Amino acid sequence: MRTLVRPPSFTQRKLYITCVILQAVPKVVDHDERRERIAEAAWRVIEREGIEGANLRRIARETGHTTGVVTHYFRDKRELMGFAFGLVVDRSTSRMDGAAAESGATGALAQLLPLDEERRRETTVWLALMSASLADPELAAELRQRYRLAREAIVPMFWAARKKRRGDTPEDFADELLSVVDGITVDALTDPERFPPDKQLVLLRRAVARLGLSVEPPAAST
Amino acid sequence: MRTLVRPPSFTQRKLYITCVILQAVPKVVDHDERRERIAEAAWRVIEREGIEGANLRRIARETGHTTGVVTHYFRDKRELMGFAFGLVVDRSTSRMDGAAAESGATGALAQLLPLDEERRRETTVWLALMSASLADPELAAELRQRYRLAREAIVPMFWAARKKRRGDTPEDFADELLSVVDGITVDALTDPERFPPDKQLVLLRRAVARLGLSVEPPAAST
Repeated sequence: MRTLVRPPSFTQRKLYITCVILQAVPKVVDHDERRERIAEAAWRVIEREGIEGANLRRIARETGHTTGVVTHYFRDKRELMGFAFGLVVDRSTSRMDGAAAESGATGALAQLLPLDEERRRETTVWLALMSASLADPELAAELRQRYRLAREAIVPMFWAARKKRRGDTPEDFADELLSVVDGITVDALTDPERFPPDKQLVLLRRAVARLGLSVEPPAAST
Repeated sequence: MRTLVRPPSFTQRKLYITCVILQAVPKVVDHDERRERIAEAAWRVIEREGIEGANLRRIARETGHTTGVVTHYFRDKRELMGFAFGLVVDRSTSRMDGAAAESGATGALAQLLPLDEERRRETTVWLALMSASLADPELAAELRQRYRLAREAIVPMFWAARKKRRGDTPEDFADELLSVVDGITVDALTDPERFPPDKQLVLLRRAVARLGLSVEPPAAST
């Protein structure tokens, strides 16, 4: 593209702009990807060493880079932790979207439980950061904001699927539904022997049924 | 007592024994009391600084003593944390016992929710230690043990009070009941604005009713 010779001036300007965009896009993608890779490394460190052990130096070592590379992408530990929490929330809610269509409310909510290695890691990070935020008002405000947005995004999935109407609001309904899921998650994380995956699903199905949602997948649209 | 002169030998021996007991009892009480005071100081430090900031030096400073005094009563941070967790569990379950008779299942379970300053501190410590234990198998084993014992102690309170019979076991029932309480607790701790005390109680009452327990206090025995 840079070999163009004597182009008309209008075309030249257009091409110049195109080149800038072509060069800029991969850089942006790389930046976002890098942040996600660093956040995933933070997840692994939190899972292995707890929030106490998850300092920037260890997280950098986990990514295979220097601390300087990490601080290029994140101002400080708090910013990284906020982003790492947001990534947990984004991943799990986007899985819920897919699961809701295929396997109904239970399948969707099951995306939030520690049923396999991936979800165990996500929920461990969720619990560690929720807990750490209790003594860190700035982090707490950030997590709350991200959590509330996720809540708003997933509520309509379930509100429309209710069988009975009880006169509560979508917000009350969401609070009830998500507190059930959060409770099973905490108990299963801290006593996995007592709460193996099948037990978690039994508890979830019962709660979902009691809350007036069908435990079956929605009927395929005809 | 030490001024006794020429007592018959049998009495002398009896008095000697009595003196030993009189001296030993206050020492034992003091030892247990000291451990509880240190654990309560640990609660306050965990609440203020999080588990990351709760080291023995800070906890000692909170008690007004040196680190040496703390390590006289607890071998290390893990032993102190296990004891501090056990004290949360003991205090809340003994409050439940009293509340169950007076205000039924809802009143008893409400003892586990962050409804006031005391319960907020207890649940903050509970959450911080549960979360910290995920990366510390030894601490996890200890908390699990203490939590299971408490669970066994409180289940009969609720199992006998069920209105409907559903064919599950007391253990399943307890798991369901306590996961509901744990979920409300986590959500209320991390978003107290969204979950003020009255909202927590509404969620609890609904869950208790759905689980087939009366939300009313038991009828006074005649």
